Amino acid sequence: MTTINVELGEHSYPIHIGSGLLGCRDLLDPHIAGRDLLIVTNTTVGPLYLDRVRDGLAGGGQRVESVVLPDGESFKTMATASTILDALVSGRFARDCVVLALGGGVVGDITGFAAAIYQRGVDFIQLPTTLLAQVDSSVGGKTGINHPGGKNLVGAFHQPACVVTDPDTLHTLPDRELSAGLAEVLKAALIADAGFFAWMEGQAVALRAREAAALGHAIRRSCEIKAAVVAADEREHGQRALLNLGHTFGHAIELRMGYGQWLHGEAVGAGIGMAARFSQRLGWLPTGDVERIVAVLERLGLPVRPPAMDAEAFLAAMAMDKKVKAGQLRLVLLPGIGEGRVSADFGLRELQDFVRGELGG
Amino acid sequence: MTTINVELGEHSYPIHIGSGLLGCRDLLDPHIAGRDLLIVTNTTVGPLYLDRVRDGLAGGGQRVESVVLPDGESFKTMATASTILDALVSGRFARDCVVLALGGGVVGDITGFAAAIYQRGVDFIQLPTTLLAQVDSSVGGKTGINHPGGKNLVGAFHQPACVVTDPDTLHTLPDRELSAGLAEVLKAALIADAGFFAWMEGQAVALRAREAAALGHAIRRSCEIKAAVVAADEREHGQRALLNLGHTFGHAIELRMGYGQWLHGEAVGAGIGMAARFSQRLGWLPTGDVERIVAVLERLGLPVRPPAMDAEAFLAAMAMDKKVKAGQLRLVLLPGIGEGRVSADFGLRELQDFVRGELGG
Repeated sequence: MTTINVELGEHSYPIHIGSGLLGCRDLLDPHIAGRDLLIVTNTTVGPLYLDRVRDGLAGGGQRVESVVLPDGESFKTMATASTILDALVSGRFARDCVVLALGGGVVGDITGFAAAIYQRGVDFIQLPTTLLAQVDSSVGGKTGINHPGGKNLVGAFHQPACVVTDPDTLHTLPDRELSAGLAEVLKAALIADAGFFAWMEGQAVALRAREAAALGHAIRRSCEIKAAVVAADEREHGQRALLNLGHTFGHAIELRMGYGQWLHGEAVGAGIGMAARFSQRLGWLPTGDVERIVAVLERLGLPVRPPAMDAEAFLAAMAMDKKVKAGQLRLVLLPGIGEGRVSADFGLRELQDFVRGELGG
Repeated sequence: MTTINVELGEHSYPIHIGSGLLGCRDLLDPHIAGRDLLIVTNTTVGPLYLDRVRDGLAGGGQRVESVVLPDGESFKTMATASTILDALVSGRFARDCVVLALGGGVVGDITGFAAAIYQRGVDFIQLPTTLLAQVDSSVGGKTGINHPGGKNLVGAFHQPACVVTDPDTLHTLPDRELSAGLAEVLKAALIADAGFFAWMEGQAVALRAREAAALGHAIRRSCEIKAAVVAADEREHGQRALLNLGHTFGHAIELRMGYGQWLHGEAVGAGIGMAARFSQRLGWLPTGDVERIVAVLERLGLPVRPPAMDAEAFLAAMAMDKKVKAGQLRLVLLPGIGEGRVSADFGLRELQDFVRGELGG
């Protein structure tokens, strides 16, 4: 087992990573002893792991209830968050209860948000079962839901009490979702660690084959990078925005296609491709580096370009992205592999021409 | 003008109190310069003050939009909060926007909650126009909405960037609402300042006659007491619960009657009466003190007893209150006038008997 600490003062918490940890009570005990528990999962993950988690918690003599949500990004709504709130209210859960999110990024984001606003904030624990959640969304305290006008436009910063990651759960993950998670691993490498990127070039096949050693390293290193970025800038006043590499383009893809057509990680993959090519167009990134990035995306089973769609609507969707500051769009770009930069240092016309070329081509 | 600072580290903020401040831009300028603004008010306050506030903000050259909510506690819902979120999204307000709450406690609570969850938190400013909001709800960062299962069960801690209180707005306040606000002034006196309570005994007539000197003192002293309590315990881990004197009983009254039948302050008035009598029953408070408290409640135009209602349903509603901890109901009780205490030091049977006596009598 490896433990990575996210250093956030009184909101600090551990990420425990290890095979077989799901269903172990020991690591959870300091955070849950004697308190009412609500496990939130979905219709896909519940049948696989809910009993194991519930059985693991049973020894404490406390109340353990569960809510099963519908599966999918299209259900990441206020209505779904309200079903969790309704369960907490009707079950008379008090302010000292603990909510456990068992599932992928959507379950974690909705559950964390419901925990953030129930009684103005109750504790929650992340039990991520997808690669995307294990390497990215379960760490850092960003919770939220989608709005018809944009992704994650409603939410809260609410750090979990702890994260328990069991890579064994990845054995049941569909191939598409595995690839989607690898997009966030690639993102972490590209913004912070050229050596990790080079390692991914060599390990792409092993990662897709779910070799335990490769996946374990990818999860640990991604969590280390994310924990360091979040510790330096919890509320995204500055450098935390680096974690959005590929996401401004990716969110526009998701919004225009309709949530759930592409997986989030797939949209991020195409978004990373776009960010690399736009960095090249601005003269930041050599052609050879762009080719390396695109090659890794392909080897990870990810799209490297956006689907054909209306360029003007796409640009409008980008302007709704949360990274807009004082009317000026900022993007995460790449001055090099292993180095990200949040930048508004480009002309609007330049971006428009680029997007039109990407979407029409 | 008086300024009281709420000391909360990086979340500290000033409360400016003074005649004629509504519509002055100077005090707001440090918090709003160059940023998009959304004013949220309701159908009662809007026609009285929206133009003045908007005109006062106009000089800055920035965008100023507004949302007008329906008036009343029965609209303190997720649906109403969503209308604010929809306005922010459809108006493409960015993360650096500022939301201004112009109105009473309901407007402030809903608006603060919407600001807390839009893009995971944007700045907001309180412009309270009712006495209850000026002395209590605009200070301290508790925001939220009601759930069909209980009051304020959904919400967030989100401190305003500043509070600007203009007591002149109280000239347009209905008598019932003035009395409701005085209930929170009385609460502040009872938990923290016996001298202030004695002052209220002498000034009850002047307060209800809206004499400027009396109201000004009541607002300032209430804000000072609340600011000190909140500074010591922002998230209500302990002493902040003192501010809930009369509120556990009061919330049960509101829930059982249906929100909006009694004003919140009226329910708190009856709740203070109940807390005083239960303190007496436990042998904490002398009969003479209870009589003094009830006499002040009456002089302030407030109910001193709950309406007749079903005792068992009332007790069930109390158990849903947020002050419940590990299954044990806590109440704010009075060992003396000017001194509150959060206590679970009573038998459930004792409380049940007391409530049955109050509601059947």
